[in-house]
This record gives sequence, structure tokens and C-alpha cells, in this order.
Amino acid sequence: MLPTEFSLIERFFADTGNTDYPARLSQGDDAAVLDVPAGMQAVMSIDTLIGGVHFPEQTSAADVACKALAVNLSDLAAMAAKPAWFLLSLSLPGNDEVWLEEFSSSLRQVSQDYRVELIGGDTCRGALSVTIQVTGLVPEGEYVTRAGARVGDSILVSGVLGNAALGLAHLQQRIHLPESLQEVCLNALNRPKPRLELADFLARYASAAIDLSDGLVGDLSHILRNSQVGAALRQGDLPVNEWIRENDAFDYALMGGDDYEICCTLPAQYRDRIDEWNQAHPDCPLSEIGEITATDYTLIKDKQSVDLKDRQGYQHFS
Amino acid sequence: MLPTEFSLIERFFADTGNTDYPARLSQGDDAAVLDVPAGMQAVMSIDTLIGGVHFPEQTSAADVACKALAVNLSDLAAMAAKPAWFLLSLSLPGNDEVWLEEFSSSLRQVSQDYRVELIGGDTCRGALSVTIQVTGLVPEGEYVTRAGARVGDSILVSGVLGNAALGLAHLQQRIHLPESLQEVCLNALNRPKPRLELADFLARYASAAIDLSDGLVGDLSHILRNSQVGAALRQGDLPVNEWIRENDAFDYALMGGDDYEICCTLPAQYRDRIDEWNQAHPDCPLSEIGEITATDYTLIKDKQSVDLKDRQGYQHFS
Repeated sequence: MLPTEFSLIERFFADTGNTDYPARLSQGDDAAVLDVPAGMQAVMSIDTLIGGVHFPEQTSAADVACKALAVNLSDLAAMAAKPAWFLLSLSLPGNDEVWLEEFSSSLRQVSQDYRVELIGGDTCRGALSVTIQVTGLVPEGEYVTRAGARVGDSILVSGVLGNAALGLAHLQQRIHLPESLQEVCLNALNRPKPRLELADFLARYASAAIDLSDGLVGDLSHILRNSQVGAALRQGDLPVNEWIRENDAFDYALMGGDDYEICCTLPAQYRDRIDEWNQAHPDCPLSEIGEITATDYTLIKDKQSVDLKDRQGYQHFS
Repeated sequence: MLPTEFSLIERFFADTGNTDYPARLSQGDDAAVLDVPAGMQAVMSIDTLIGGVHFPEQTSAADVACKALAVNLSDLAAMAAKPAWFLLSLSLPGNDEVWLEEFSSSLRQVSQDYRVELIGGDTCRGALSVTIQVTGLVPEGEYVTRAGARVGDSILVSGVLGNAALGLAHLQQRIHLPESLQEVCLNALNRPKPRLELADFLARYASAAIDLSDGLVGDLSHILRNSQVGAALRQGDLPVNEWIRENDAFDYALMGGDDYEICCTLPAQYRDRIDEWNQAHPDCPLSEIGEITATDYTLIKDKQSVDLKDRQGYQHFS
């Protein structure tokens, strides 16, 4: 006999994660009950990963769990919020206990690492799909939006861009990466690291922020639109690996999705904070890649200026 | 050219619903920002509806939207919480603008009716699937769980049981309903009404509550397990339509899913409140259908007692 929905959640997902803000009532009822501490605001996002759309079908259950939670936490990171709780809705083609064991064990590990508690969920039969809704907390008024960029602000990105897109291209045999880059690029694709460590930096200094899920050019355009400004990006300053540089394959960094790095804008008076940050956080380097302008959206490349207005990032729904 | 994920949400789902607790930051950023008023707790649930699993493939877009939101609101109703905000994750096989127009317009109507605001979401291509995460609010400590039932409490249900299961059986041509019952049963299946009006009654009087999604026998068993008690149900007192009574087809009421009525337990000292409620709320009648006992789980039927322990309700994952 197959386990019921009730016992699946109970059996595989009990006691997943932890948080500084324990739920008043967690899994096992019609809904969870949460206390949002005085002086804090709740920050909420939802994201679905579908097999064959958002990750290759052959992705391991452990990597699917890791990525599904990470992409949601990345949205919180972009708002300068700290994770507190999440809900899971899992649709699976069959009752594959080995898959569930691997998935839930990875989910438990990642949710412990990032201090976020699984407060409820449901499972059902259907095409492989993982939806996670995450709630973070932020001190009142300290969240960062896409709407505050001003002319003259620096444009920063965290980490390295394009590795996830390279990993996917390698998997799909569109390119062949050198051995030395395969692991880092496949990890970038399958196990993105939400940049939660940037929360305080963003809350203090950034005028706008977004996480990079669909590619730098498309995602930055949301900041530009919401802030009603333009941007000039400098291709030479993009933080990319040597393969992209040697092969002049900057489109992986500009248009490739799945980086889950943070792109933010920084008023000129805080420019000194970049070096300060980079010295203290070698694992999460910030690179200055351009500047906010009044209207145009351009890429400066070999001393030429390329119009980015009609270029979009990866579009899931196309 | 197909619209991007960004423009789909913006185009079809902007300004959907409203609430007494407007979001500080709603759709259009990485996440929404919400204020939980002092003295209130947040109540959160998530539910997915998959085409062909949770609703027949031929269900209209308007009905899918209505049901997807209603089943989530029903979870809040069972906790005695009032709806505030929701997030939507929609997966669609193609870019069917007619379907999206009908779906979003129905979602807008239902979310206005129940005063709940759409604060964000995403769309992607995949098998038809709608996930909604809903957040409600409840005055601190006034939520109702599955765990408070005590021996001697009355067991109540709202509305009429079995209509949704009859509607499904009729659609699937397993039975043929008389004309006079078709509309009410199909409406029960496709457009369930979350019993949010019961919130104050439950908070004041109920010792435990659950919403009926998988069938009375299975759902009540969760109250019994969490409260460590038994129950004796009286078949003759089940609120069912004349077709079920005439055909002795009580299994539709006992085991059929999708009723989205509330089942709650009521300490003896509040029994007078039932008549009082029913006189004031003819559209949401409460029926007393049995009693909480020490251990056994039985159905009293034609003066005989039938063991319910091995009977379960509808299992999505089977």
C-alpha cells in the first residue's frame, strides 16, 4: 500500500531545518502559526522548479532539493531579509522512496545550513515539480527593493557570473569545458549559494538590489525600469572565469540564467565599502561592473557601446 | 513573440484582490513585504491543484482559479484565521491567453470576495498546476488546532457533505444525478466555499477543527490522532442530500473528498450555541453528527456500530 499524503510529509519531512524564530505551530495541522517579532516585517516569495524546464531531468534529488530552496532564499537575500520559515509543495510522478529519501535528506541539510524551518507542505502525484514558499524577516523599513537606483550609482555583482550557464551548456554537450572548470560550473548550476551574507551590506548601503535568476541583462533591466534610470555596463569588468574570457563568450555571463548572485546599486559615497567588504569576505567578492545612467542601457565592449535595450535574459515561458 | 514570465504576472494578475492589511510592498519585486499587526499571529498554508488529479481536465479556467484559492482559504477557516495575502505559482502547458484571461478574472473576483490580496507569484511552462500559498491573521493565541478535542465533545460539520463527490461521480458518468441536484453538486465540486464566516465561532467555542478535503472519516481521524481520542459518528445525523439518503449512498459523505466544509468539536457547555448560530446563519448550518469518545472510532448505522479505524478518505497520492 502506498503511503498517504499525510504520512509522506510526516515521514520524510518532519523536523526539517531550524530557525531563530521557532514556529508557534509547525507541521501537522491545517496551517502553521508564526510570530513575527515586534519591529520586524515579513518578506515572502514563491518559486517553482519543474523537471526539464528549470533543471535537467537527470539532476539528482539532492541537487533538486538544494536548488529549490536556494532560489527562494536568493529572493530573500536580494531584499536584505533573513530566512525564517518555508512551505513545500512537491509533485512526484511516483512513490519513489529512494528519491524522497535523498531529496528530504538534502533539504534538511540545506535548511539547517541557512537556518530556515519547514513549517508545512503537501505532496501529490504529478509531473516532477517543487514549489517552495519562503518567509524571511527584516527590521522594519530596512528591506531593499528594485526601485531605488540613482544616476551615478555603481552597479555591483557578487561572485562569478556565467558558471551556471556554462555548466548547463556542458551538460547539454553544446560546449566542452576543461576538467578544471567542470565541477565549479556544475555546482553553480545545481547547488547555487544564496548570498544571504550580503543582507547587512545591502540594508546599509545599497540603493537597489535584485537576484540574478534569468541573466544579468534581463534582471538588471527590472532595476532600471522600477528605478526609471539607465545603465552602462563594462564587459571587461564582468567577474567571469578564464574560459569565458579566452573564448570571448561573455553572453554566458550577460544572458545566462541561474547564477543566483546579487546585483545591486551603490551610491558614490559608499564606494569605499566595496574593498572593505571584499577584504572581509573573500568567498563573496563584490565587483563593480558599471554605472547607473539617465536613460540608455548599454554595454561597453572593446571601446564600443552596444545597445542592450532589446536584449533579454533567459525566458522560462517561451 | 511570447510574453516573458515578468509580463505575464504583470499583465494578468496586477491588482488582484484586496485586504484590510495592505502589503507594504506587493507584486513586482523579488519578494513582498508585509506588516503583521501587533497582537496578531500569521497563519500560513500551501496547496497545489494539478489538472487530472485534483480537478477533471475539462474544468473551466474560472473554476480552477476559484477552487485553487478556496481550498487554501479553507485551511485558514479551519484555524479560525482571517485571510490577508496570497502568492501564486502557475504552471501552464502553453501560452493560452484566453485561458489566462478567464483564470485571472475569476481569481480577481474570488480574492475580492474573500478580501485577500495577491502579493506575488511566478508562471512557467509545464503541466497544468496551480499552487497557492495563503497567509491569514489571527489574534494572538486564538487559533484552533486539531489537537484539543476531549471526550464528550460534540462533533459538528458545516453545510452539506458528499455533494462534491456526487458531482465528480456524475461528471465521470459513474452515477446519473437528477436535474435538480446537478448544479448544486457541480458547484460544490468546482466552486467550494471556504467557511471563513465560522472564524469567530471556532475561536470562541471549538476545542478542535479541521477542513474536509479528503473525506470526513479520514480528516476527522487527524483530529482523533492529534487529540488522542476516539469518536462515534451517527450516520443518520449526517447532513446529506435526498439522493444520498434514498440510495443509501452515505459513502459519498463519509469518504468523498473536496467538501471543504469545517469539522469541529464542541465542549458540552457550548451546545446551546449551535441553534443560536444556525438561526443567525442559515447559509452555513452546523450539524451535530456524533461525539468524541475515549478510544474507538465507529459509525452508528441502523443501530449497528461499524469500525472506522481502517477506513481512510480519498488519497491523492495513491
